[in-house]
Amino acid sequence: MSTLLLDRNTIKSLIDMADVINVVEEAFRMCGEGRGKMPAKTYLSLEHGDFRAMPAALPGSAGVKWVNVHPQNPSRGLPSIMAILVYNDPETGYPLAIMDATEITAYRTGAAAAIASKYLARQDSHTIGIIGAGFQAHTQILAHAELFNSIAINVFDVSKVAVDRLIQSLSRFSIRNCLIQDAVSSDIVCTLTPSRSPVIKREWIAAGTHINAVGADAPGKQELDLSIIKEALVVVDDLEQASTSGEINVPIQKGAYSIGDIYGTLAEIVAGKKKGRTDNSATTIFDSTGIAVEDIAVAKLLFERAKQAGGYPSIELVGI
Amino acid sequence: MSTLLLDRNTIKSLIDMADVINVVEEAFRMCGEGRGKMPAKTYLSLEHGDFRAMPAALPGSAGVKWVNVHPQNPSRGLPSIMAILVYNDPETGYPLAIMDATEITAYRTGAAAAIASKYLARQDSHTIGIIGAGFQAHTQILAHAELFNSIAINVFDVSKVAVDRLIQSLSRFSIRNCLIQDAVSSDIVCTLTPSRSPVIKREWIAAGTHINAVGADAPGKQELDLSIIKEALVVVDDLEQASTSGEINVPIQKGAYSIGDIYGTLAEIVAGKKKGRTDNSATTIFDSTGIAVEDIAVAKLLFERAKQAGGYPSIELVGI
Repeated sequence: MSTLLLDRNTIKSLIDMADVINVVEEAFRMCGEGRGKMPAKTYLSLEHGDFRAMPAALPGSAGVKWVNVHPQNPSRGLPSIMAILVYNDPETGYPLAIMDATEITAYRTGAAAAIASKYLARQDSHTIGIIGAGFQAHTQILAHAELFNSIAINVFDVSKVAVDRLIQSLSRFSIRNCLIQDAVSSDIVCTLTPSRSPVIKREWIAAGTHINAVGADAPGKQELDLSIIKEALVVVDDLEQASTSGEINVPIQKGAYSIGDIYGTLAEIVAGKKKGRTDNSATTIFDSTGIAVEDIAVAKLLFERAKQAGGYPSIELVGI
Repeated sequence: MSTLLLDRNTIKSLIDMADVINVVEEAFRMCGEGRGKMPAKTYLSLEHGDFRAMPAALPGSAGVKWVNVHPQNPSRGLPSIMAILVYNDPETGYPLAIMDATEITAYRTGAAAAIASKYLARQDSHTIGIIGAGFQAHTQILAHAELFNSIAINVFDVSKVAVDRLIQSLSRFSIRNCLIQDAVSSDIVCTLTPSRSPVIKREWIAAGTHINAVGADAPGKQELDLSIIKEALVVVDDLEQASTSGEINVPIQKGAYSIGDIYGTLAEIVAGKKKGRTDNSATTIFDSTGIAVEDIAVAKLLFERAKQAGGYPSIELVGI
């Protein structure tokens, strides 16, 4: 037996959004049916950054993602975030593969938001507002394009260069550079900023908007006006992560929002235990923090694809 | 940049007990001085086994050990435990190496016990009792032989075959097969069994004995009579792990022992914040559960050795 080694270029060649959406939606369904296992993320905080250990298991798959966040890395020519995933056989614990998880993280985050939009956005949604034109914007657009027909994309970023780069790299889509209030008046809004104070104002939001709040992923981060959150039907990926580090963490910290105000988890909705949107005039929010079962589901897809294709490097790392 | 790949045979060729003891003792010292970081182990429990994520950092090193325990594996021709360690640069998060951690675990566990014996056993100790002649017995003997001169080793195991195998494989040492009560009457006793009820009786223990209680590593496990624990000076590697899964976990669960009864941590003693043995007639116990800073310290030693030697395989796993 040996352990497959799948580097970032290999993962890029194996991954595609349509299948990522399928396996991530199935992972939410299994979690909603109580068939997923996911202990809380562990944080290792150091002087210049932190690491997170994210273990999870689904029927037939298990593993851990080990991901760092070192904000000063770009000045050294390194990415801020470098993720590795160890993918194991849950029956024996054998490490079947070690893979780069940078693309996996970006793809599964886009997929989770688009799945949330499928259940929570109005069915006639066709405009997508993208707030923040960085790395994550690509996979948000790719994922929504899989689930919504003939979409028009309205992008805002403080950096005009970032918007131009996004438009050039996704030239097959209809993308236009907007003012923030125009981007926010789209049917579906994806907020992808690292903001620590609300950038989206209540008065810009039209009736019936669905918002994927993706940017907030640590204590103190917040992108939406409190009044938007208080009026909306709020769905989270993970109750504990969302309340400590998601979009709702600051309002909860201030006592302006409580865990009891959350409508439910995306897993409950995908599994049919709770309804998605029922009122076309309601504002809905998916508070996405990123969960390890999403990563494991994609890792299984890529491992099986690589094994079937053959020819990738492997190593007898462990053994008797 | 690339990530070094160090498989189990490579680790076997790079590791040696004298240096492992040095770096593990230094790791305890740094932790005692507040310079180590180690969030709690995370458990992922599945039907046929479990996984543990063990992250840690010391000045100049960081990483995570990901280790499984699948008790039924031997019937499938696989080891029960297969550990992998991702070793990172704490300054940038870059994954410098991925290595097998099975030998690392065995060596650091032996080293930690021998370091505890150095501070807690009588200085004239020369007999070592080994209870349980499995895999861990080798590294307990190797480690104690580094720190104690001309030792005589008394081994007990329910399996005579296991004792014979141990004696043959360590033929350079003076090892004899004993009754359990004779092995326990040694100056230093290492208990290495998976027992769930005490196997060591109070009346077998001579005045001034030091016991390394290594076997208990999960809730419900226990090797020593309660009266031994209650009378002894108890030192732990980690307060939380010891009280939930170490030798003292069952007495604490039953209300017969409390965290306040613990004398201190080995890190405090190595750092000089608390004294080791002061009374030659006292019984001392080191309750060893295994901590991630031990693994990271050894990983750093082996990474630097491999990098200096050169010629080991590597992969560009992550990157821009």
